[in-house]
Amino acid sequence: MGKYYFGIDVGGTFIKFGLFDQTGVLLEKWMIPTRLDKKGECILSDLSEAMGNKMRDRGLDGSQMAGIGIGAPGQVDKEGKVLAAENLGWDQVSLAPILEDRMGIPVKAGNDANLAALGEAWKGAGCRDMVLVTVGTGIGCGVVLAGKIHTGMHGAAGELGHIHVEDRLKKKCACGKSGCLEQVASAKGIELCAKYILEESQEPSMLRGQDLSVKKVFDAAKQSDRLAIRTVECFGDYLGKALAMCTCVLDPERIVIGGGVSKAGDIILEYVQKYYRKYAFPACENVQFGLAKLGNDAGVYGAVRMFIEETP
Amino acid sequence: MGKYYFGIDVGGTFIKFGLFDQTGVLLEKWMIPTRLDKKGECILSDLSEAMGNKMRDRGLDGSQMAGIGIGAPGQVDKEGKVLAAENLGWDQVSLAPILEDRMGIPVKAGNDANLAALGEAWKGAGCRDMVLVTVGTGIGCGVVLAGKIHTGMHGAAGELGHIHVEDRLKKKCACGKSGCLEQVASAKGIELCAKYILEESQEPSMLRGQDLSVKKVFDAAKQSDRLAIRTVECFGDYLGKALAMCTCVLDPERIVIGGGVSKAGDIILEYVQKYYRKYAFPACENVQFGLAKLGNDAGVYGAVRMFIEETP
Repeated sequence: MGKYYFGIDVGGTFIKFGLFDQTGVLLEKWMIPTRLDKKGECILSDLSEAMGNKMRDRGLDGSQMAGIGIGAPGQVDKEGKVLAAENLGWDQVSLAPILEDRMGIPVKAGNDANLAALGEAWKGAGCRDMVLVTVGTGIGCGVVLAGKIHTGMHGAAGELGHIHVEDRLKKKCACGKSGCLEQVASAKGIELCAKYILEESQEPSMLRGQDLSVKKVFDAAKQSDRLAIRTVECFGDYLGKALAMCTCVLDPERIVIGGGVSKAGDIILEYVQKYYRKYAFPACENVQFGLAKLGNDAGVYGAVRMFIEETP
Repeated sequence: MGKYYFGIDVGGTFIKFGLFDQTGVLLEKWMIPTRLDKKGECILSDLSEAMGNKMRDRGLDGSQMAGIGIGAPGQVDKEGKVLAAENLGWDQVSLAPILEDRMGIPVKAGNDANLAALGEAWKGAGCRDMVLVTVGTGIGCGVVLAGKIHTGMHGAAGELGHIHVEDRLKKKCACGKSGCLEQVASAKGIELCAKYILEESQEPSMLRGQDLSVKKVFDAAKQSDRLAIRTVECFGDYLGKALAMCTCVLDPERIVIGGGVSKAGDIILEYVQKYYRKYAFPACENVQFGLAKLGNDAGVYGAVRMFIEETP
């Protein structure tokens, strides 16, 4: 049996690759741009070529490769077929079967957010029951139970961004409903919240008179700007409440927060935990909280872990 | 190996027993009163005696018994030790080890609400990924994933009754927090809601001038009493919203509603589904809904199923 694995994370801008040994050590990582023209039909040949080149560079043949794990931004079924990945221009693409055929190496495919959660559980937090929530442009989430991804009946498990948290918001979310967590606690949601708070108050704030951004909000809050702090409290209340609901259902070992917004650092944990504890079922009040550790590498780690975990 | 199983459900009023064959058919069921005096210390000997008598009646010896599954109303750890079961007067009781020692038959123990969910999944709904929510004096819940109970890190998975759903409610829940689903959508919650609605309105209603009960509320709603319908809408909104949150996290195959309040019948499903669809993530909108089918037998079925499922 082969000794090496490729882990791949296909994103809308870059395709990230990792070469791993059989103990799960990342030997080398690199990336190539994602070519989105022609409905993303170059992606599969670009993937194969990149892996082929790496194998030649390292003098590896197919028999030394144990497998390929790959993540894509969309719904992926149990056969490794992508059912839809709008960001890549893909409708249905038989991702795993086609790659397996071209490379002559076993391939398993999964959803990228789920694989990021699995990667963080494996090499970031080192635990087997974990929820990863990524707060960026949107709010994504992956659920890992007993060391495996929990996908749910329709691949919709961990759609934490679409938990209903705000009755007063009538504007529609991208999902078609309204009052979703993603509308109020994503990067856009935080900016919107800051805008309202600034408009409603006469207080001075270092956020006034400039373009708002999440970074500016958190930086101002760290400098004790009162309206910025009020915005962060609001974010903490929404996300903390949603995570408390989530632990009432799952009771995980650990909650990890990642995504662009988590770059603000410990202030995120401070405010989310404050409100989490307010709403949480007492037995789950002291669940471990942490920030994601693997950054952009989480997906390639998770892809390899999925391959190892699902191979008998 | 033995051919028969005992399934036992220890409740605060009765202990229910079932004798099952190796294919999971319930051959006979019976119950005895739960003796709560002396901090429930008679319960273990009553259990052993009842099983011993049944084996003698049927001419069965220990070698013909494959195992005993037992559920208790409290937190039960992986070794089958009950950590606390207030309704029985129990602090820590090594339920499974003690029974195993006395009977000479392998014993596995679990939480009663979780076992009811497993029983309904196995013999009621016939599915492997299911959430059972029981609406009675309180709101209980059990989560079955891939045919097994999901207990969570602290045994608190499925504490759906303590999801925060009402910011306006400042009164404390039994859990110590406020605004919990159980406070507004349990039998007591429904009565409280009806009381407010009657007080706030001048409209005539067949609910006026009598003691309120959940049965009367649902009966009046079936007869098109407008204030009763408003109460049922309110219940449907709370429970439907909480279940929509739950499916955003788990994406189960099926949701089953049981407990005393479910005796009102299809009207429960009608109003809960109406609001569930309002709040649910679109991919999960058409999750299967059903009423619990096994009634008081769910626990004994689940206890046996746990034994079979967990035995290598």
